[in-house]
Amino acid sequence: MTKITAVGGYEAVGRNMTSVTVGKETVAIDNGIRLDTLQMYDGDTNALKKYNDEDLLRMEVVPDIRKLKNISAQIISHGHLDHIGALPVTEPKSPIITTHYSAEIGKREYPDGNFYSLGYGERFEISPHISVEFIEITHSIPYTSVVVLHTNEGDVVYASDFKLDDYSSIAKTDYNKLREIGKGNVKALIVESTRAGETGKTPSESIAKEKLKDVVNSIEEGLIVATTFSTHIERIQAILDEAEKAGRIPIVLGRSLFKQIEISERFGLLDMPPDAKIFATPKVIRRAFKEIKNRNDYFLLVTGHQGEPRSVISKMIRGEYQFKFEKNDSVILCANAIPTPINIASRYIIETKLRSFGVRVFDDVHVSGHASKEDHRRMLRMIKPDHVIPCHGGINMRGNYAALAIEEGYEFNKNIHLLNNGTGIEI
Amino acid sequence: MTKITAVGGYEAVGRNMTSVTVGKETVAIDNGIRLDTLQMYDGDTNALKKYNDEDLLRMEVVPDIRKLKNISAQIISHGHLDHIGALPVTEPKSPIITTHYSAEIGKREYPDGNFYSLGYGERFEISPHISVEFIEITHSIPYTSVVVLHTNEGDVVYASDFKLDDYSSIAKTDYNKLREIGKGNVKALIVESTRAGETGKTPSESIAKEKLKDVVNSIEEGLIVATTFSTHIERIQAILDEAEKAGRIPIVLGRSLFKQIEISERFGLLDMPPDAKIFATPKVIRRAFKEIKNRNDYFLLVTGHQGEPRSVISKMIRGEYQFKFEKNDSVILCANAIPTPINIASRYIIETKLRSFGVRVFDDVHVSGHASKEDHRRMLRMIKPDHVIPCHGGINMRGNYAALAIEEGYEFNKNIHLLNNGTGIEI
Amino acid sequence: MTKITAVGGYEAVGRNMTSVTVGKETVAIDNGIRLDTLQMYDGDTNALKKYNDEDLLRMEVVPDIRKLKNISAQIISHGHLDHIGALPVTEPKSPIITTHYSAEIGKREYPDGNFYSLGYGERFEISPHISVEFIEITHSIPYTSVVVLHTNEGDVVYASDFKLDDYSSIAKTDYNKLREIGKGNVKALIVESTRAGETGKTPSESIAKEKLKDVVNSIEEGLIVATTFSTHIERIQAILDEAEKAGRIPIVLGRSLFKQIEISERFGLLDMPPDAKIFATPKVIRRAFKEIKNRNDYFLLVTGHQGEPRSVISKMIRGEYQFKFEKNDSVILCANAIPTPINIASRYIIETKLRSFGVRVFDDVHVSGHASKEDHRRMLRMIKPDHVIPCHGGINMRGNYAALAIEEGYEFNKNIHLLNNGTGIEI
Amino acid sequence: MTKITAVGGYEAVGRNMTSVTVGKETVAIDNGIRLDTLQMYDGDTNALKKYNDEDLLRMEVVPDIRKLKNISAQIISHGHLDHIGALPVTEPKSPIITTHYSAEIGKREYPDGNFYSLGYGERFEISPHISVEFIEITHSIPYTSVVVLHTNEGDVVYASDFKLDDYSSIAKTDYNKLREIGKGNVKALIVESTRAGETGKTPSESIAKEKLKDVVNSIEEGLIVATTFSTHIERIQAILDEAEKAGRIPIVLGRSLFKQIEISERFGLLDMPPDAKIFATPKVIRRAFKEIKNRNDYFLLVTGHQGEPRSVISKMIRGEYQFKFEKNDSVILCANAIPTPINIASRYIIETKLRSFGVRVFDDVHVSGHASKEDHRRMLRMIKPDHVIPCHGGINMRGNYAALAIEEGYEFNKNIHLLNNGTGIEI
Repeated sequence: MTKITAVGGYEAVGRNMTSVTVGKETVAIDNGIRLDTLQMYDGDTNALKKYNDEDLLRMEVVPDIRKLKNISAQIISHGHLDHIGALPVTEPKSPIITTHYSAEIGKREYPDGNFYSLGYGERFEISPHISVEFIEITHSIPYTSVVVLHTNEGDVVYASDFKLDDYSSIAKTDYNKLREIGKGNVKALIVESTRAGETGKTPSESIAKEKLKDVVNSIEEGLIVATTFSTHIERIQAILDEAEKAGRIPIVLGRSLFKQIEISERFGLLDMPPDAKIFATPKVIRRAFKEIKNRNDYFLLVTGHQGEPRSVISKMIRGEYQFKFEKNDSVILCANAIPTPINIASRYIIETKLRSFGVRVFDDVHVSGHASKEDHRRMLRMIKPDHVIPCHGGINMRGNYAALAIEEGYEFNKNIHLLNNGTGIEI
Repeated sequence: MTKITAVGGYEAVGRNMTSVTVGKETVAIDNGIRLDTLQMYDGDTNALKKYNDEDLLRMEVVPDIRKLKNISAQIISHGHLDHIGALPVTEPKSPIITTHYSAEIGKREYPDGNFYSLGYGERFEISPHISVEFIEITHSIPYTSVVVLHTNEGDVVYASDFKLDDYSSIAKTDYNKLREIGKGNVKALIVESTRAGETGKTPSESIAKEKLKDVVNSIEEGLIVATTFSTHIERIQAILDEAEKAGRIPIVLGRSLFKQIEISERFGLLDMPPDAKIFATPKVIRRAFKEIKNRNDYFLLVTGHQGEPRSVISKMIRGEYQFKFEKNDSVILCANAIPTPINIASRYIIETKLRSFGVRVFDDVHVSGHASKEDHRRMLRMIKPDHVIPCHGGINMRGNYAALAIEEGYEFNKNIHLLNNGTGIEI
Repeated sequence: MTKITAVGGYEAVGRNMTSVTVGKETVAIDNGIRLDTLQMYDGDTNALKKYNDEDLLRMEVVPDIRKLKNISAQIISHGHLDHIGALPVTEPKSPIITTHYSAEIGKREYPDGNFYSLGYGERFEISPHISVEFIEITHSIPYTSVVVLHTNEGDVVYASDFKLDDYSSIAKTDYNKLREIGKGNVKALIVESTRAGETGKTPSESIAKEKLKDVVNSIEEGLIVATTFSTHIERIQAILDEAEKAGRIPIVLGRSLFKQIEISERFGLLDMPPDAKIFATPKVIRRAFKEIKNRNDYFLLVTGHQGEPRSVISKMIRGEYQFKFEKNDSVILCANAIPTPINIASRYIIETKLRSFGVRVFDDVHVSGHASKEDHRRMLRMIKPDHVIPCHGGINMRGNYAALAIEEGYEFNKNIHLLNNGTGIEI
Repeated sequence: MTKITAVGGYEAVGRNMTSVTVGKETVAIDNGIRLDTLQMYDGDTNALKKYNDEDLLRMEVVPDIRKLKNISAQIISHGHLDHIGALPVTEPKSPIITTHYSAEIGKREYPDGNFYSLGYGERFEISPHISVEFIEITHSIPYTSVVVLHTNEGDVVYASDFKLDDYSSIAKTDYNKLREIGKGNVKALIVESTRAGETGKTPSESIAKEKLKDVVNSIEEGLIVATTFSTHIERIQAILDEAEKAGRIPIVLGRSLFKQIEISERFGLLDMPPDAKIFATPKVIRRAFKEIKNRNDYFLLVTGHQGEPRSVISKMIRGEYQFKFEKNDSVILCANAIPTPINIASRYIIETKLRSFGVRVFDDVHVSGHASKEDHRRMLRMIKPDHVIPCHGGINMRGNYAALAIEEGYEFNKNIHLLNNGTGIEI
């Protein structure tokens, strides 16, 4: 008997955690926060510290681990905050198992963690009955993994989050390994569902690069400022490359960009152009702006893709760096507005303010990192699980996944399971 | 030759001002702020004082009066902030002419103002060539007027804002007077357009009352908290009446409610139930909450219909009054979310937080105060102006009004004029 | 052991059927079609006959009854087509049990049916172990019932569809009986969920009446044409009453209006004004139009609220009755566009064409007939079932109901069950 | 004095015509239909013949040319139906001047037309005072032109429709020529505005190609069917190329595809792969389907991107070719649904029916052919006209263009002009 419990992420997007219990041992997978609820109280992850555990549960910011007992291992699939960000709150004492890359990110969030990191192809024995292995897959952060739990009752596969991008330059989905796993005995696939209702396939990162090239090519003058997700190293590389091709000096501003770039460089994933510069703290950022003489010569990459009030772009707009936006400057938003009312408002505010200075805004130079319906179908056909458990999404998203699984011959409530935070299934 | 100039409110909703020049004299009508832009910088009208005039123009918060010369009079149509709120910024020195009621509101905003107030049916001679008269009409604040400028070149009629509500208990559209004006020589109608694109007619306030009755009747237990526009006296009366009918003690909390209720009582427009209480400042509000013993006995009316962070309802949610929302409390939102991204986000935040306490939310117990397409048609047929100039709205709203006027036989750019802030027309 | 099986209506709105099995006996409740899918193939219920059963299943028009065995009774909750319209396709041979009123409607759809009809308060013994009883409740068609199956294992309550309207003049929710049932042993509540995600409560029909009065009062001249759901007798009465109050002769046109009015008059539910006339077939309708001399004297009630191409209003627009719409005629749409792409397009087409003739359109003079979130909460608290099974809606609608039930202390997958067409639950 | 008159396309998208009068001579530019209104009456351009001119005007299908006198020339900017499709209705007798390519399209629509065709760089003397010249620009049909009218009072430039696509393989915007024109004396720019409100720039066709490659690469088996605009030759080439790369035989089905491909091949714009086949009429199409044995070997390109009921894809779905869609077939929609309620419904219908067969649908493999805000800014800065007259769009679209022009220093109603069908401006 294998028990799979929905701990977090089964009512809305964010604060992901699923636990798998075999015999008396339980393994937790992912340990994330929900940013959109946290933002309602305070716009910053530093705010986590202000609240006690009970409040964070009522606020629906962290997964509810109160019923979890005997955790043998905490597994992390990738380094996004909705999968890793609750570690400093839930403070797992068990080993935290992830890839080398994600471990670096995790250690910064939760320095007291007992991290064990694995390469692709390696196995970690959690106990005599359970071992874990990571399979490479594409997403919007390096070293995202499909997690395979090998148990004495069969395999449990966890695929949250991912896309199938055959033209990524930073990661490669290991189709052979996925198909091999699928030929074995997969008891269950736990799988993200954020875009399972989207028709077709999620476009490759190559489309974002082509869009970016097209936009930069169209800008004739003025300062160029781009913003994107700090963890999206492939996108950051593309931005830096376009800056170089445009004959501009790339300058990167902001703490979280600094942090992620630093890690990615260490792993050889990012080639900073030789003339690029990076500044993390407010003080040095202020100094950096003094260097900018001819606006046509520079290409800034800054934090603030969601219009966060404390990001570099918001501070630039508010004039906190002795810098002023000017007519003919351009801002390229290499990120969509994550569709929550708060993000939509924050983005609207920065876009409106930028326009009040005459700045040109280029929106949606972006593609999603999450699988669409047809990507999910391919994955399901490769893994061929006995049971599917859609995770990471509200009931409508997971319902969309269920509809797909029904098309593929699965049966609702028999081997497709819609869980809810706090509920589980024994198979 | 009469010159009509679009000073503010002709690019987006808010900061209304139109000027009318006959010979060498100019009259300004309305003098409002745009709240949704101000909110991007600071969520409060008190914030006006922080900014200099130049910034407030760049931020698109106040009308641009820099080109206005020789203002003989500042006329105010009604007491909403988007028509009156810029007075303390633009500081007109000329007489400020409005109804007695709106003058009371205006004096609080701009105590240094040189207010002259009129009753319906009276005329004020601005100069030998221009006099002004107010005609009663229905809207969502008492003593809203259609402004008629009688000039030696004919009449200019200004109808912003209004609805045609034949079942209002607080105001009565003076159809006879409007028709009489229409039989004369009306050179131009300047008319609001916020909902000119809405099919049909705007429902009467009687529909809001019926909705409210229906909702209150359905609530069996717990504290009831309602919120609405502070200036909407007819709605406030309906809320207090329903509180009484439900056998609950009405308690009104918040400074802006206090201010508006105080004025409306003075004018005999509001009957506070004998057991009702009202508290304005944070200190006394805190004390008021101590009085609430049995939640089933009380019905609160509080500020915060748009989820404003400094409103009473937001403070109740954040626990700033030693009060805690409980499961089974009910919140009735007697206001729609004004459809800007910031209001939508603010409302989403309070509704989400209320739900985290188990509070039941009743939304949209409301009807608009602005004329829809068929109301506008009736008005246009009564006034029969030579020219129509839609105001108060973006190009699409004013374009919708223009489409209606074309249906009624007017011709685009000939006697229908779409202006832009800063531009005018001579007729 | 009681088995509840989702036969139809558990993936999308429409084609409702749920079966309840106790021991070896199965009872089917409701037997409806899905109109929005049928419309994709042919815009008419007459089209049903063109297709074979297999096609109708692939087209998702009727419930899939192939696995149902040993049906002891077919129960019908009310006379809407999505609950009754598949009878002529599925052709149940068992007794069809419903109220007298719904039986009349049912017999017209399925003349070969073996109908048994009951009054409120009566019980029908389906077998020694199962009896059925109907409880009066408000909806948008007369004689809608909450169905109570009394079995030797407890009660199963079926509430689809309903609203809680305490100001309806045509029906009265029997709260006492519902509470009494709730005090007994209710094993399961099967409950519609179409608007379970809507905040607050669904407005009473009194609000629709108030809106209608307000609109009619505002129309000064021209022919008035209204359209609404043919089965919505309370709305039809309100339209006829307003016609009378406006001093106009009411004329009703269209076969389905004729049919429903005929039944409702027989049950004493509708008072046709003495000067009202009704015409059903194209031939007599054409003649009726010849009678209309002075357009100001008439008020037409016609079919076509969704813009159906074969409705009277569509034929009037296309000039098929030697009638032409004129400028200043008014059309009042006493129905919302049911939100499917086909209805939205059909409504758009008639509204656009009406405008091409200069006709004034009054939209949304309507309130829904389906319970909102807080209505559902009240029902759930009255019935106090051991298990809840949301029906009639896609996964998101039923998920919204589940979220409400969780607020009320139920547990997902334990005593809240989301089923799928073809799946069931044993309790 | 130059008079510019808005004949059609100034109230809604479609039925474009603008006339330019210098002295006593008038030139008409474009002569298109509005498809979305025509569709409300009959879903086909052949339906044009059914209606008389008066009806077609009331239905808002063709431009109203009744006031146009003394037309010296009819100029056509490109071959889309909303620019050329009314020729057989308005039947101009004057010379019809366009590029060689567009003339070929025009002759098929209006065989009696008196066509004169020009190459880029050539001038045609309409009269001693007016000559016309075409400048190459990118759009979604080959040989789209910016039209330059050289008059003795200065140049009038007409840019409707266009995008600025620097990576198109089929056309090249002649920036040098545009800049040269801009250095001269441009009295007015008449410019499309359909997407003037879209932030940023319209993506290059290279992005559509990258998306298509990504989608085709992800399809492992089954028949592949693509659909796109028949006139979009660059897209058609990309589809055929991907078919070849996938090792599949391309088969093109449908009359309008046949017609446009035939012309484009003659102009050397399209390379049909050697094994590709094309079938135009229902009879041969039926035969073509018999050839398809192994579904994995074929890649069909068919008509029906908007779900038109008489298109090949609709007939395939309805089984009119003795062909049946099967599970695992894929349909790639290389077109967005043009956002009118009828197109949205038609697309919804075909997508829903395709899913009922288990077909996988890939949506939105497409980029727009219309300039966005920043493209418009570049164009405006190149042309530097004295006056701008946004065309092709409702008031909101043209208002969006006006807002851009204001940013660029133009003044509303002074040198930015919003016209309405039937109105004009003298400059």
